[in-house]
Amino acid sequence: MIVEEIKKELLLIEEALKNFLSSQVPFINQVSEYILFAGGKRIRPLLTVICAKLFSPSVSEVLYRSSILFEYLHAATLLHDDVVDSAEFRRGRKAARNLWGNQATILVGDYLYAKALKLASELRNPEIMEIITETTLIMSEGEVLQLLNLYQTNLSEEFYEEIIFRKTAALISACCEVGAILGGASNKEREKLKIFGKYLGLSFQIIDDLLDYLSTETGKDLGRDFKEGKITLPVIYALKQASEADQKRLLELLNLPEPKEEFFEEAKNLIEKNQGFKLAQEKALSYINKAKDTLNGLPENIYKQMLLFITDYLTNRKK
Amino acid sequence: MIVEEIKKELLLIEEALKNFLSSQVPFINQVSEYILFAGGKRIRPLLTVICAKLFSPSVSEVLYRSSILFEYLHAATLLHDDVVDSAEFRRGRKAARNLWGNQATILVGDYLYAKALKLASELRNPEIMEIITETTLIMSEGEVLQLLNLYQTNLSEEFYEEIIFRKTAALISACCEVGAILGGASNKEREKLKIFGKYLGLSFQIIDDLLDYLSTETGKDLGRDFKEGKITLPVIYALKQASEADQKRLLELLNLPEPKEEFFEEAKNLIEKNQGFKLAQEKALSYINKAKDTLNGLPENIYKQMLLFITDYLTNRKK
Repeated sequence: MIVEEIKKELLLIEEALKNFLSSQVPFINQVSEYILFAGGKRIRPLLTVICAKLFSPSVSEVLYRSSILFEYLHAATLLHDDVVDSAEFRRGRKAARNLWGNQATILVGDYLYAKALKLASELRNPEIMEIITETTLIMSEGEVLQLLNLYQTNLSEEFYEEIIFRKTAALISACCEVGAILGGASNKEREKLKIFGKYLGLSFQIIDDLLDYLSTETGKDLGRDFKEGKITLPVIYALKQASEADQKRLLELLNLPEPKEEFFEEAKNLIEKNQGFKLAQEKALSYINKAKDTLNGLPENIYKQMLLFITDYLTNRKK
Repeated sequence: MIVEEIKKELLLIEEALKNFLSSQVPFINQVSEYILFAGGKRIRPLLTVICAKLFSPSVSEVLYRSSILFEYLHAATLLHDDVVDSAEFRRGRKAARNLWGNQATILVGDYLYAKALKLASELRNPEIMEIITETTLIMSEGEVLQLLNLYQTNLSEEFYEEIIFRKTAALISACCEVGAILGGASNKEREKLKIFGKYLGLSFQIIDDLLDYLSTETGKDLGRDFKEGKITLPVIYALKQASEADQKRLLELLNLPEPKEEFFEEAKNLIEKNQGFKLAQEKALSYINKAKDTLNGLPENIYKQMLLFITDYLTNRKK
């Protein structure tokens, strides 16, 4: 039953995504649709909708329209990320930049960002606007920090957490907090959902970084972080545990110039041998538990069950 | 005296620009400062400040802080433009992308955009927020339209006007309208300044496009539009007037692959011969006059004189 209810919400979100993407420039719609309808999980708008309904189950249609701003924002960052990373693929398909070039991809990213902020402004709620603009600021700083630290193999766990907070958790946290505001939550309830979103986002990204090595599903661009020289938590943990020889070899592999495909398996084995995956999984799980704990004291209804369901779903996903 | 008063305002704007640029990431400040303190004219924040003071001469310090959001927004578009255009220079110096690469330039552009929206949100004024987000949407669509129509040599005057409205006039119009709102103008007064800004912006861009061919000052990247295949008003007018042979040759020159430097003078002579510059100058002047006329009926004080002064200054500038 919970799955059915979630599917219903997802359908309404999908509809809103299709209805409100309406640039007068057909080319913009074409590129936007390509990135927006490429099998994204819609986690962000879904969280906004459910967090609102947790407090006001019968909220209006405006909610769906507002929730999609977070998907536009997310899509905008994906377009710019792919240009910055010179990515060839995204979700198992050619990256937009691979079809329409970097120039158009940058500019359509700007458009989707502007569109998201426009939708936000239509809520005419200064509090929400401040949360969203603060979040985009945090995110853009995070992107720069990440770029500056590519191939930095002595990253600390703290720095990694700052990066994943900025690139993923801040936005997921904002989705939940804005949802709570739209649902009429009290300040205390709102704060709880903000924290819930933060922990959920942190675990979401750690799992994403694990799947970059371990996913067995198609449609996942395996080894992308490795090839781009992104040092993620499994690597950080493995380096801590490893013998001097293993450390040296893993660092070598991570700093190799292209093509790195053939060395991916070797790196994966070294991380596995030195417990990098196991320790990162434990870390993700600890955040998942913190996220769930944060929901204590909030209304006991189907929407809370949906939040718990989504949390488990994200933990156990294979791609 | 008016010049002195404008200089005073510019100093306060300069101070605000320095004070509120404060990313925790030093590299972001470095790149931002490079683009922000590169001899920009500060036209956009200046217009906001003066349009506010036209109605409330004693507005508070918040005004300066708010006005600079338009300079951040402008700087963000310059950074992305330079990446999209593969520009080597900007205002007579190396383009940021030439020093720090495309990746960092895209991301710092995103940061400046986010920073601008953050400053806007701090005003907690939904009306202003809607104007600004609508403007950024118009601008981003304009950038895509321009990209799609590079090397399109059969551009109409109407399409050219749409492009320059989107890329320049919309933002200058927003600067004036937001200034009016901050100064407490009535709806009618506010509308007048919105229109004033639109006409001023249209003439500003036509003059910019003229200077791309005609500037004799250093610090102007002469022939940039020509080399990038941007068809501007002087070309559109010249093509209309030209003989078949001249048309053919001018089109050839505009569609040449790199390097085009040596053909720039030839194109310039063909445009001159076919009255392209003269007619574009007349068009700019007609917008200047419309802008000035729009100011009729607004308060007669030094700030109105400043608006008229700035209008003339922008008309007569040499770079």
